[in-house]
Amino acid sequence: MYGAGEVRVEDRPDPKIVQVTDAVVRTLAACVCGSDLWPYASMPATETGRPMGHEFLGVVEETGADVIGLKTGDLVVAPFTYSDNTCDYCAKGLHISCRNGGRYGFDGVDGGQGEAVRVPHADGTLVKLPVAADSALLPSLLALSDVMTTGHHGAVSVGVTHGDAVLVVGDGAVGLCAVIAAKRLGAERIVLAGRHQARTGLGRAFGATDVVAERGKEGTARIRELTGGVDKVIEAVGTRQALDTALGAVLDGGSISRLGAPQYEQGPIGAAEFMRNITLTGGASPARAYIEQLLPDVLDGTITPGRVFDRTFTLDQAPDAYRAMANRQVLKALIRP
Amino acid sequence: MYGAGEVRVEDRPDPKIVQVTDAVVRTLAACVCGSDLWPYASMPATETGRPMGHEFLGVVEETGADVIGLKTGDLVVAPFTYSDNTCDYCAKGLHISCRNGGRYGFDGVDGGQGEAVRVPHADGTLVKLPVAADSALLPSLLALSDVMTTGHHGAVSVGVTHGDAVLVVGDGAVGLCAVIAAKRLGAERIVLAGRHQARTGLGRAFGATDVVAERGKEGTARIRELTGGVDKVIEAVGTRQALDTALGAVLDGGSISRLGAPQYEQGPIGAAEFMRNITLTGGASPARAYIEQLLPDVLDGTITPGRVFDRTFTLDQAPDAYRAMANRQVLKALIRP
Repeated sequence: MYGAGEVRVEDRPDPKIVQVTDAVVRTLAACVCGSDLWPYASMPATETGRPMGHEFLGVVEETGADVIGLKTGDLVVAPFTYSDNTCDYCAKGLHISCRNGGRYGFDGVDGGQGEAVRVPHADGTLVKLPVAADSALLPSLLALSDVMTTGHHGAVSVGVTHGDAVLVVGDGAVGLCAVIAAKRLGAERIVLAGRHQARTGLGRAFGATDVVAERGKEGTARIRELTGGVDKVIEAVGTRQALDTALGAVLDGGSISRLGAPQYEQGPIGAAEFMRNITLTGGASPARAYIEQLLPDVLDGTITPGRVFDRTFTLDQAPDAYRAMANRQVLKALIRP
Repeated sequence: MYGAGEVRVEDRPDPKIVQVTDAVVRTLAACVCGSDLWPYASMPATETGRPMGHEFLGVVEETGADVIGLKTGDLVVAPFTYSDNTCDYCAKGLHISCRNGGRYGFDGVDGGQGEAVRVPHADGTLVKLPVAADSALLPSLLALSDVMTTGHHGAVSVGVTHGDAVLVVGDGAVGLCAVIAAKRLGAERIVLAGRHQARTGLGRAFGATDVVAERGKEGTARIRELTGGVDKVIEAVGTRQALDTALGAVLDGGSISRLGAPQYEQGPIGAAEFMRNITLTGGASPARAYIEQLLPDVLDGTITPGRVFDRTFTLDQAPDAYRAMANRQVLKALIRP
């Protein structure tokens, strides 16, 4: 990406092993993230550009001398950040804060939207997939890279448990995966706030019991009318409006888990929220911590997060993939190099 | 209070039963709250004034026709808001959000800094104390009205459990009671951030294992040096500086419970905090929910929160009590009408 709206497909040097803990992964499937749309909307123009993509799965092509858990030919999925899986944060399951972790597309590491990626800390990062490279499960397995593990993080951090009523704000891929996750953890009532019918329809298929299309104060009023207010909210957008909807719908003493990267620096945490004992929780998902937890349910078809991918593009079509997602013509674009 | 710095002791009409669920309580002991100092610093001048005080204990003088659990002569403590103890919020233990609750000093209800108070929803609000009116325990029992139950709320909402390391920001009465509460719940290491030696000394007596007097970045650095960072922070001040100290000291994935009424409307909950998975929790304490839980420990002397009262004033001396607290000559002023 060379700036807002400016995605180019270019040749780059083939990734090579740099550290003994690296692996090179040949990408089989990648995708465009909702969060990629923020720079697509507003990134200042640059001459050097930035490799894009942080969700991918593929086949191990080469491993560094110290990589012991992976070998050439293994099919693996990459969580959306790399991590050593050994530091104190990783030991707690907070791989997103890994002391030695980092992001694809930065610091000399390629992005996932490409033919191959050098993955640092390969043993700590990559998770082997027990399926063939032509498995029909690949889209759902790819979803473990980010959207499904992120939706799960929302449900876990807000403490969804059996019989709960949960509000999910946002009908993007993360919101829809949060519906899957909430249902999987036993939520009985799942209200999905979203106005895009194809998406909310998929949300219903995933387990949403109610859909609220209204926004702002009307949306809040409708949610309160339906539910009397909810104790647990997953905010899967990242805008102030989405946070305000969450704050308006949550009961006093309730919790809001934020999954959408906030598009604001300051937010309402003053006397009003204090008096109401609102808990703000969640954050960037430690995807790596959840992949093995969710993998069996993907393998046996209990959950099918891959359904969020509603169009497939070749790598050459990546600019179209961005455009289609930005225009909301496509929910989530799968890219097959 | 007639405005900033303007506290007057005046005759007011004797409180009378208005609702059948009311009781009139003759005040035996009351006190000035740290939160009373905010209007004392900044309240706009008013001609009508505002009755002050929301912490008191006393003797039931008269009860409305529907009051069944209390009788004339009972010694009772009042939590700092009144509540019916029957609504959905009270049923959850969130009495601060009671659907029929309210604050002393507002809506025709007197403040606790006076000779007598009409207490709405007396059955739901007041807790009987099994001691004599001249008991030496009265100060510690009075602390259940607010500071001790508030400190406890911080420790509970941040999830303090056996063996924890906890940071308490603020050496006011609430911060010191948070130290008591954290220790009571099993915290092994309790770092108290405060610079007033008499107060931090009391904090050590209550169970603080370390005291950090430095503020701002130096304070944060010192806390990190001592502890490596902590997962659980109780912020007992309410200023942005105190929140920044909490944010600086907490580990990624950690929680901050806010007990000090925020003196800001917007706060830092943007991308940086999101990436770190910081949870903001706590809020105004549901004091009523905790009084019976803590009462046995006060009665048997396991906890002695009454030690925060370091000077006693008569009601006539109330203006001196405010002045002494505002000047930090007194930690917490006990008022004996």
